[in-house]
Amino acid sequence: MPRPRSVVPSSTSSASSEQGGTPMGPVRQGPGAKAELAPATVEVRGGFWETRREVNARTSIPQGPGLLESAGNLRNLRVVAGTAEGEFQGAYPFVDSDVYKWLEAASWQLAQQAPEDDSPLAADVERIVSLVAGAQQPDGYLNTWFQLLKGGERYRDLRWGHELYCAGHLIQAAVAHHRATGRDELLDVAVKFADHIDSVFGLPGSGKPIDGVDGHPEVETALVELYRETGERRYLDLAGYFVDRFGHGLLGGEAYCQDRVPLREATTVEGHAVRQLYLLAAAADLATETGEAGLRTAAERLWAAMTTSKTHITGGLGAHHDEEDFGDPYELPNERAYCETCAAIASIQWSWRMALLTGEARYSDLIERTLYNGFLAGVSLDGERWLYVNPLQVRDGHTDTGGDQSARRTRWFRCACCPPNVMRLLASLEHYLASHDTGGLQIHQYVTGRYTGDLGGTPVMVSAETDYPWHGTIALTVEETPADRPWTLSLRIPQWCGAYRVRSGDTVYDQTDAPVTDGWLRLERTWAPGDRVVLELDLEPRLTAADPRVDAVRGCVAIERGPLVYCLEEADHPGGGLDDMVLDTTGPLAVKHRPDLLGGVTTVVAAGHRRHIADAGWWPYRTAGTADAPPADAPLELTAIPYYAWANRQDGSMRVWLPTS
Amino acid sequence: MPRPRSVVPSSTSSASSEQGGTPMGPVRQGPGAKAELAPATVEVRGGFWETRREVNARTSIPQGPGLLESAGNLRNLRVVAGTAEGEFQGAYPFVDSDVYKWLEAASWQLAQQAPEDDSPLAADVERIVSLVAGAQQPDGYLNTWFQLLKGGERYRDLRWGHELYCAGHLIQAAVAHHRATGRDELLDVAVKFADHIDSVFGLPGSGKPIDGVDGHPEVETALVELYRETGERRYLDLAGYFVDRFGHGLLGGEAYCQDRVPLREATTVEGHAVRQLYLLAAAADLATETGEAGLRTAAERLWAAMTTSKTHITGGLGAHHDEEDFGDPYELPNERAYCETCAAIASIQWSWRMALLTGEARYSDLIERTLYNGFLAGVSLDGERWLYVNPLQVRDGHTDTGGDQSARRTRWFRCACCPPNVMRLLASLEHYLASHDTGGLQIHQYVTGRYTGDLGGTPVMVSAETDYPWHGTIALTVEETPADRPWTLSLRIPQWCGAYRVRSGDTVYDQTDAPVTDGWLRLERTWAPGDRVVLELDLEPRLTAADPRVDAVRGCVAIERGPLVYCLEEADHPGGGLDDMVLDTTGPLAVKHRPDLLGGVTTVVAAGHRRHIADAGWWPYRTAGTADAPPADAPLELTAIPYYAWANRQDGSMRVWLPTS
Repeated sequence: MPRPRSVVPSSTSSASSEQGGTPMGPVRQGPGAKAELAPATVEVRGGFWETRREVNARTSIPQGPGLLESAGNLRNLRVVAGTAEGEFQGAYPFVDSDVYKWLEAASWQLAQQAPEDDSPLAADVERIVSLVAGAQQPDGYLNTWFQLLKGGERYRDLRWGHELYCAGHLIQAAVAHHRATGRDELLDVAVKFADHIDSVFGLPGSGKPIDGVDGHPEVETALVELYRETGERRYLDLAGYFVDRFGHGLLGGEAYCQDRVPLREATTVEGHAVRQLYLLAAAADLATETGEAGLRTAAERLWAAMTTSKTHITGGLGAHHDEEDFGDPYELPNERAYCETCAAIASIQWSWRMALLTGEARYSDLIERTLYNGFLAGVSLDGERWLYVNPLQVRDGHTDTGGDQSARRTRWFRCACCPPNVMRLLASLEHYLASHDTGGLQIHQYVTGRYTGDLGGTPVMVSAETDYPWHGTIALTVEETPADRPWTLSLRIPQWCGAYRVRSGDTVYDQTDAPVTDGWLRLERTWAPGDRVVLELDLEPRLTAADPRVDAVRGCVAIERGPLVYCLEEADHPGGGLDDMVLDTTGPLAVKHRPDLLGGVTTVVAAGHRRHIADAGWWPYRTAGTADAPPADAPLELTAIPYYAWANRQDGSMRVWLPTS
Repeated sequence: MPRPRSVVPSSTSSASSEQGGTPMGPVRQGPGAKAELAPATVEVRGGFWETRREVNARTSIPQGPGLLESAGNLRNLRVVAGTAEGEFQGAYPFVDSDVYKWLEAASWQLAQQAPEDDSPLAADVERIVSLVAGAQQPDGYLNTWFQLLKGGERYRDLRWGHELYCAGHLIQAAVAHHRATGRDELLDVAVKFADHIDSVFGLPGSGKPIDGVDGHPEVETALVELYRETGERRYLDLAGYFVDRFGHGLLGGEAYCQDRVPLREATTVEGHAVRQLYLLAAAADLATETGEAGLRTAAERLWAAMTTSKTHITGGLGAHHDEEDFGDPYELPNERAYCETCAAIASIQWSWRMALLTGEARYSDLIERTLYNGFLAGVSLDGERWLYVNPLQVRDGHTDTGGDQSARRTRWFRCACCPPNVMRLLASLEHYLASHDTGGLQIHQYVTGRYTGDLGGTPVMVSAETDYPWHGTIALTVEETPADRPWTLSLRIPQWCGAYRVRSGDTVYDQTDAPVTDGWLRLERTWAPGDRVVLELDLEPRLTAADPRVDAVRGCVAIERGPLVYCLEEADHPGGGLDDMVLDTTGPLAVKHRPDLLGGVTTVVAAGHRRHIADAGWWPYRTAGTADAPPADAPLELTAIPYYAWANRQDGSMRVWLPTS
């Protein structure tokens, strides 16, 4: 069958050098950006993510001020400002950043709120902005830990002090607040702090007193954002200086804080996962703004090193509890997977920058996987409880030691970095979903809503209706288009998707006649308002195996359906014994939508049995091949739920990877 | 074939209620001990362990004083005594214990030294004993960390302060020093400190100011030893008080420091592995001395829980890096196995007490496995470098972050608990090898040397010649025996041993006609001097599989031969790629003794191939069953060396468990 005329992959898409509309939020690009794609504007109006964002807006974010008050974060600001008395509260030098991340989340939320919304959120934001402003020192410095506990010892402990890290989150919050409200109060604080930092940090010979970097990257992306918001080039240059200075021993040469090797020479991701990922997001930002090929190449190389050998199937990152760091290649444990929720967020932020920089769909493949699995598991369905670490297995007989690294959901953490990070990502999620260039509009993630781009001044808009990820049908309608100019509607065909169909008018194409190029199905034509495109992604559940070097899952498969990774949970298998269950790979995988369960999920029911284990006496190792033949057990139904929904019922065992014999 | 007359398993062996001879060393029993067996005296005169003990005596122990001087441990004692100036040196409150463990090791060594030996060891010992005595406060207290850094804050931080832990190691050293030299100087220090502790700690209402325990058990076994050495019952009672008070929340209820649940109610081993094991050794000591059934039952139950589901094949214990603790049942990772060298030592100490208490051979089965594998890997063949953690896998591409928990051998540690612990175990190894009761002599571990016991006043002695574990033949000769009284020579048939033969005079029996009862082959007869018994244990190499709940090794086997666990090491496979190698389970296992290699080891060569891995692109997970069929690769020789000998050549990858497909 000849290739249909209307499906013409465009071989290159030119970069948009300026933006139309007013796209807000993470990674707005500067005026001279060298990226392939620019972020497009999306309104999420229903469906899966709107539900999660509603919970975020109605429960998680509104509870923030109360939690920050109880934990002492807000009082610290008052004590510094002299409006309260007391000692510093908190276990870590970076507690201020919890406040800033909440402010950022609340600001993105405010930006979406109807003007007539009379929730107390706006007032809470302005109140807390005032607290922050009140705590700033005259020269711009602000960090309550150092101001209350370490008077006069600024920037003496860059490895652990987190002063620039906190500054970065303050700047990110200020940019969000300014974009959302148009108000300057927080941006003024941020600019003053950024100017102070710029006066302190620089190369030897620059006349600035300190040549150094913060042990936890974060200020770098923030400074790029501040450059984008203010147009002040100094901030971009300062970000570039910081990124360049990692890996030169200024922090003692530790991999943990990204100081073992310069980014441009690194061959794999290493050290503390969140630090590595925030630094790489900054590298992508700099490559976007400056066009530097060396940073882009390094970021591409490190992304591939990460995904090929250091990423859990959930998109989770970080293999070790003790340093929250990446492990060796293919070291991807299940019960001790660290997979910090913040690392999932950082991965999404980095990958989105890479998607725009390169135009390649694989970055959004990873974003999708991470969003629906490793990220979303970090917050409970009711928006009130959190996971800091996201294991892929909780064993029968699990003893939980509690604390931040517990496998049980917690109301708040001593190190409360993850909850407000989840809040800010959910509140700004619409910024990660689509892009545009002069040649068209690219839909990276499928939601019910409106995707708006412009083709160098000419607006285009496409609306979408979908029940994804429960159903694979995405119905798109062209709402706004130039009448006489062809452009390309690019639809990402997910990496996991083996079969799809696309209906455009009366014609139906599938993967054989409308092939995907580099992850994109590109529909180029002259569109008319009302034109419909219906994409159907095959959501047949599938059994997934890992590269044989992933020792932790040898002889196991995972159940997946669409972008969702599934797991078994004890709540669906009364009596537990999950570690004795075996999946029969020759049995059927039955799909059952259960509107009653966990807010409405599609379950996958597999066939299996419970393994018979002969009593081994006191020693569990025996000569290979001498184990008793298993007696014929009664078949067992294994009910798998989406991984993101686990740990929302009772405590119990859970596992993603299931033995097949 | 009828059962030969001379092989009569004795159904019970009666407890020895008093000891003949002068058995010295760990777990001498008190006069009223309720144990099944009493420790017998062994002289090691050659063979495998004598070589390792020679290195310990000639290199490791003599280097101790210099290392303790460089690290500051000895200077701290001088500063406290006022003979030197300076600040406390060291990263931990328990640095004094490194000195005490070295003194204990050196004392056991002195006890074996010929009187004419003119090495400086005795002088070093007396010099350091003087330093210790000089640092003791008038009331008996001694801890340089608290004396130098925390004046007046004694016993305020029992959870982390390690004051009683250090006292315990001081007492153990004093007992060893007293037994070895007959001198009182260190014993006087220990008694004074013990009396001080006894005056401070007790139940509410006892009139003593503190009801508490130390976060790290150790003083408990030491106090039992002090009771045995001095006959002072108060020390036994104080040990009992401490053991009883764990698990009642005095330390905040943490599992980490054994405070979550009382030992008598515990159902599994948990928390910090060394703490758990030292506490259980104390429980066994108390059950031995008091006959308390509750403690014995708890110890038996917890030993079984540990071995069935929380012990690595090497005997290594502890699954987690971040708290050095036990994991969940069957959570036995390879690359992140913690298996602290000290935990292996603690396991041996506990199991030996259980072996004597119960008379059961399985405890010595675990001791053997631990000695030859998980323990011995902790020290390099030259006795100069150490491993704190003992992983079962080092991956291709391993990035080592250095520090105490490195997978690379280290000259000394910031937390130098393991090296002097290895030294003291090797120097006192002869105490863990044999036992006796009124009915006979039990040989638990096979070495070249002399085993001496007594049958309630009548001495017996058996000499042994063996090249075990390289060869399975152990030739025993009765040297001393009563002329007219039958007694039982009990030989432990190792748990791993599927076939054996025993020759006694002209008669040969094998496992069918000289069966093992509870791990013991019992030869009861009236012996004459010169009687020979030759035991041949089948050392055919074998492939071992794990209980299927040990997820980490699914689809893998380990190579074992006799008591030795084997591993592949990159040094024998130039170019590495160990993680791609597959063992062919149908191929032969060839045994090659290599006198030139690693001080002389028997290697096992297996057949295998290198796995062909199709390029998976950026994502290492794919639909099960869709991987390319592997092309026929050239066969590959896999050369396995004993695990204890790894990491003595170049840095590189290593693995114990080998995939079979």
